[in-house]
Amino acid sequence: MPEPIDFYFDFSSPYGYLASELIDEFAARFQREVRWRPILLGVVFKQTGAAPLTLIPLKGEYSVHDFSRSARFLDVPYTHPKNFPLATQDAARTYYWLHDQDRETARAFAHSVFRALYVEGRDVSERNLVVELAAGNGADREALSAALAGAVLKARLKAECDAAFGKGVFGSPYMIVDGEPFFGVDRLPQIERWLSSGGF
Amino acid sequence: MPEPIDFYFDFSSPYGYLASELIDEFAARFQREVRWRPILLGVVFKQTGAAPLTLIPLKGEYSVHDFSRSARFLDVPYTHPKNFPLATQDAARTYYWLHDQDRETARAFAHSVFRALYVEGRDVSERNLVVELAAGNGADREALSAALAGAVLKARLKAECDAAFGKGVFGSPYMIVDGEPFFGVDRLPQIERWLSSGGF
Repeated sequence: MPEPIDFYFDFSSPYGYLASELIDEFAARFQREVRWRPILLGVVFKQTGAAPLTLIPLKGEYSVHDFSRSARFLDVPYTHPKNFPLATQDAARTYYWLHDQDRETARAFAHSVFRALYVEGRDVSERNLVVELAAGNGADREALSAALAGAVLKARLKAECDAAFGKGVFGSPYMIVDGEPFFGVDRLPQIERWLSSGGF
Repeated sequence: MPEPIDFYFDFSSPYGYLASELIDEFAARFQREVRWRPILLGVVFKQTGAAPLTLIPLKGEYSVHDFSRSARFLDVPYTHPKNFPLATQDAARTYYWLHDQDRETARAFAHSVFRALYVEGRDVSERNLVVELAAGNGADREALSAALAGAVLKARLKAECDAAFGKGVFGSPYMIVDGEPFFGVDRLPQIERWLSSGGF
């Protein structure tokens, strides 16, 4: 069995969302699994001098236009959220809390978060909504709420982020395929060729 | 006759170079001409907080890797220059000086500059080399040297840059197709669909 594809993303990344709607089916065509790895880019942005795309002069306006156009191009539903950018640490922490119990539930939850934000325009920075979305995927509300209030889960996400940055991850989505890094949903065609021909 | 595609680039942009090797044939498939518009991104980078890709922590290392991989993907020869990033105002000014005499000569010169830098690894920040490349495309060395030493040509490039920034251009390559903006050589597939179907 070949190595899974590592898929790093920030829930507050529209291009990460677009990739999330495509990556599993994409990888399955090459008999690959995908390891989903939500991270928080805020820390690395401080290091790289980057900022959320929509807050950058000139580039911000283009980006909002490009999010929607890229979504149409990729045939993924998208409505740019009014509340954007937004904090996603509760969503990312909940992902790992679920992941440590059951991978598939965590993935279904991740889709719920992305779609709540980028299709329904809901404010996933709110802890109540995050817990509600997790409960909708079968999670125990009280256990999750307790975990979100504690230090262990906070440390768990921080360790994931540090590990990602240690591998060079600086943006979202960021895919690593057999050690080869690809940044951006617009690198899927390159990944496709990479997987088809074992590199190029 | 449909409107030409506007193609903005900075000679110090590897992705701009990759686009330069593809854009004319690409556009011709849709019966489109291309208006080449070299600019200097330094000014807009000050406004957007951007920096040359290779100077950004983490992203810089990835970018150098991605330049070469993207070149292989697009079947364009590429060797990352040792002297990089570098100043390209003489090259851009010479482009417009030639352009005001003969468009085709200017385009041939632009290819010469890009290939000298990204294939042969020559230092196109040197005025002597810029003049040599222009002369190789038939330019009068003395007249060009005089123009490069004067204020008129400097103002000409500044006006081109200001006009580009006024249209929202913030990076390289940046293409405008019937008013629709596309940033990055990785947007060529979207432009292709846009031109095939009159928008999407």
